[in-house]
Amino acid sequence: MPEKLLYAAPETDADLLYFGRFFAPDPFFAFTSGRRKVAILTALEIGRGRRDSGFDEILSLEEWRAKAAKKGKNDAAGPAGVITAVAREFGIRTFEVGPAFPLGLARRIEALGIPLTVAEGGLFPEREKKTREEAEAIRRGNACSAAGIRAAEQLLRKATIRRGRLYYQNRYLTSERLKEEIEIACLRKGAVSSHTIAAGGDQACDPHATGTGVLRANELIIVDVFPRVTATGYHGDMTRTFLKGTPSDAQRQLVETVREAQKLALGKIKAGVTGNTVHAAVVEFFRKSGYETRSSGAGGNPEGFFHGTGHGLGLEVHEAPRLSPRGPRLKVGQVVTVEPGLYYPGVGGARIEDVVWVTRDGGELLSSYPYRWQLA
Amino acid sequence: MPEKLLYAAPETDADLLYFGRFFAPDPFFAFTSGRRKVAILTALEIGRGRRDSGFDEILSLEEWRAKAAKKGKNDAAGPAGVITAVAREFGIRTFEVGPAFPLGLARRIEALGIPLTVAEGGLFPEREKKTREEAEAIRRGNACSAAGIRAAEQLLRKATIRRGRLYYQNRYLTSERLKEEIEIACLRKGAVSSHTIAAGGDQACDPHATGTGVLRANELIIVDVFPRVTATGYHGDMTRTFLKGTPSDAQRQLVETVREAQKLALGKIKAGVTGNTVHAAVVEFFRKSGYETRSSGAGGNPEGFFHGTGHGLGLEVHEAPRLSPRGPRLKVGQVVTVEPGLYYPGVGGARIEDVVWVTRDGGELLSSYPYRWQLA
Repeated sequence: MPEKLLYAAPETDADLLYFGRFFAPDPFFAFTSGRRKVAILTALEIGRGRRDSGFDEILSLEEWRAKAAKKGKNDAAGPAGVITAVAREFGIRTFEVGPAFPLGLARRIEALGIPLTVAEGGLFPEREKKTREEAEAIRRGNACSAAGIRAAEQLLRKATIRRGRLYYQNRYLTSERLKEEIEIACLRKGAVSSHTIAAGGDQACDPHATGTGVLRANELIIVDVFPRVTATGYHGDMTRTFLKGTPSDAQRQLVETVREAQKLALGKIKAGVTGNTVHAAVVEFFRKSGYETRSSGAGGNPEGFFHGTGHGLGLEVHEAPRLSPRGPRLKVGQVVTVEPGLYYPGVGGARIEDVVWVTRDGGELLSSYPYRWQLA
Repeated sequence: MPEKLLYAAPETDADLLYFGRFFAPDPFFAFTSGRRKVAILTALEIGRGRRDSGFDEILSLEEWRAKAAKKGKNDAAGPAGVITAVAREFGIRTFEVGPAFPLGLARRIEALGIPLTVAEGGLFPEREKKTREEAEAIRRGNACSAAGIRAAEQLLRKATIRRGRLYYQNRYLTSERLKEEIEIACLRKGAVSSHTIAAGGDQACDPHATGTGVLRANELIIVDVFPRVTATGYHGDMTRTFLKGTPSDAQRQLVETVREAQKLALGKIKAGVTGNTVHAAVVEFFRKSGYETRSSGAGGNPEGFFHGTGHGLGLEVHEAPRLSPRGPRLKVGQVVTVEPGLYYPGVGGARIEDVVWVTRDGGELLSSYPYRWQLA
């Protein structure tokens, strides 16, 4: 087994966070030495690292920089020089790195005589398989999502309708206000939610539009909340669709069809089934229900169901595996979202999303929130 | 001029955000074609990209995947296959990429016949130089920081002292509560603050410790808030130090010395001066004032002044240039933090941080908050 090498900021690199269970704002090296996990930290992080991280050994960056500079030439005190000196000390001649390892650093390390091999499937493919503890951390993330959705629902309930628009506390209710209250609710639960979606009407037909401006009565409003729990780094990811006022038949049918599709997909999840099978079942169900998907409908934008049915969830919001046309066979312990949606400008968008922990015979729901959507 | 190529998620890649001014959760390709900025987006992002981004042209990932698959072999529909096909269409034979370009993808692209050169100084070294508009976006970020610090100060003022501990609304006041209120204040201003620091006593002697547990009277409390404005992606970054109760002489001298050092450093900032000069002046001032720095003091942890005096601030919290031993010459338009600190377990930690926009003759402050620190 080659030793593994990482260089990243754990804040933005799930592998490093998984490996060391330690947050730090700047990139640093971590590597395996047999069964030991080693990190090279600056004086600024070393105390916290020794106390709070999962590393077995922590080296001082400043000390190793000095050692490397003494022996080496020009850039010896730079990151490549440091890791080369450390590797020599640890008797390591080659490293395995993840596909996202920075190219510039890789070339410098190789130029100093340490070849790198890329683990195409990622350094820690086992990260897909969540332990009970990790599943509970994701459940906790979804409790934060649910708190955010609840805050949104409560605002929508309290709002009145004035000239066709939603009105609350002496002003028109906007997507921005809804998102703010959702994100505050998440914070109060210990999670940071950013790029939260609270989009109504045709805006919601663009599944990643976060929503802007005044919300209207009788329009479908998609609320999608994917916060990260600050303590652990694990995410929640849930979506509900609401409508304040009176739905049209087309809107009602849209929401009910999406919910039926979600139930269908949830029922298909179990170890051994491919992500493609689950996704294809949803595609087929929508087609049979009369909902066509076009890559460019009115205005040149896609309409119908044009995203995957779900994705892995963990230290990243979007991670392996995908429930999509090329989705692989599901394995026990994976955590995936199940989130079919339908989008038709003029009618609106509907998406309903929950999270499942894959078991041998099915899946355990890690998210919980009612499906009521019509708010008087 | 070689064409530039990026592959990343703008959420975590400041270069891509700078290039396209567009947020999206998943990685995508963007590249230059002469003066044009081109992106390859999925159906999920294409509508929003055409409407809201700074790209001149947006290609459909799905269409190019199909084209690439038709012509190519095995992995032709993967990212490397897609960019190779697109490059051929655009008559591009080689790309320049940033040092953080993912190694795995780089090797696949090169294997398909397109060599990549690494721009060692980054793809957009001009990102260091902030326009008036960018400086104002950072000022806005600091208004969010200030709102957070104000929320913390108000809580500390309202708290009473009970058995040496801070007490508020029928419970002891914790670092966690302080951070929550800071982050809510940031959200209300339109920014997301994470890993906010509100650490008291010896905890604050570890400059990146975020703080945990009950805060005490008569201890120095460091509050460091670096939110990201959701609309623009630019950050604020400010620090103030507080003490509720009565300071000891040693604490008073510590805070006053740090503030003097900050004034000294702020006075030295102007175009042409090196980051090293500014930093060395602070180091020397502390030494002359009787504050020694040791790489391992009591308990094996460093004490004194053991971090840089400041760092560039923009789309990243920590970016070039640094005000540190190897800090380069400052240039007009750069934005840097100025944040000397002193840390002595037993006495406590003090750090004061503001943000400056470098001009020909000095600097323009982009942050504003009082320096009162002793709260009765």
